[in-house]
Amino acid sequence: MTTTTNSSPQPPYYAVIFTSQRTAQDAGYGDTAQRMAELAAQQPGYLGVESARGEDGLGITVSYWRSLDDIKAWRAHFEHAEVRDRGRSEWYQHYMLRIAKVERAYGWALADGSTDPISD
Amino acid sequence: MTTTTNSSPQPPYYAVIFTSQRTAQDAGYGDTAQRMAELAAQQPGYLGVESARGEDGLGITVSYWRSLDDIKAWRAHFEHAEVRDRGRSEWYQHYMLRIAKVERAYGWALADGSTDPISD
Repeated sequence: MTTTTNSSPQPPYYAVIFTSQRTAQDAGYGDTAQRMAELAAQQPGYLGVESARGEDGLGITVSYWRSLDDIKAWRAHFEHAEVRDRGRSEWYQHYMLRIAKVERAYGWALADGSTDPISD
Repeated sequence: MTTTTNSSPQPPYYAVIFTSQRTAQDAGYGDTAQRMAELAAQQPGYLGVESARGEDGLGITVSYWRSLDDIKAWRAHFEHAEVRDRGRSEWYQHYMLRIAKVERAYGWALADGSTDPISD
């Protein structure tokens, strides 16, 4: 469920930053998250996703999209809307969703060299 | 190291999305990350931060800022620049940094109700 440092497209593109705090209720969560990741990846304009959740239950998932219309279409997908309802009733204590336009991107990898890509 | 659902300012503002893969080298990392979080919070234009790292070592930290100039000033802070050098030589296998303009934000909390804030 991660994109890699070097496969990211040139900006501009869009990011959906989803920050969430989980409940202790685990039933169905893993399978559903996996299904949503697969389904999102099939949508028009999908560019990639990065996701991390710490032991404290705070998670951040950032998905990347070509346009706002692509984000809107994914949001309206019936299966996605249904899962959002279940998320609110079972899996999340709270969440925050932000839609942002990526204007610049810098990647660095140990394998590639050692300079600071963001020093300029 | 988290912002809460309800304290987020009205867009527009800026997000710095830092996605990183850690090495196995832990020495100094925790203290330095803590120090950087404290230092960032003292900078002009700082709005908040959210951070999560999973067991696979993939981490996402999103910091929020009032303007691009505020981000630029924090980037140029001598202690921050020094730590970036150490990050590349010791703590990270690769990272990606994206600067994005937050255009919309929606929060939901179990305590507040049960409707979908993003259905409209």
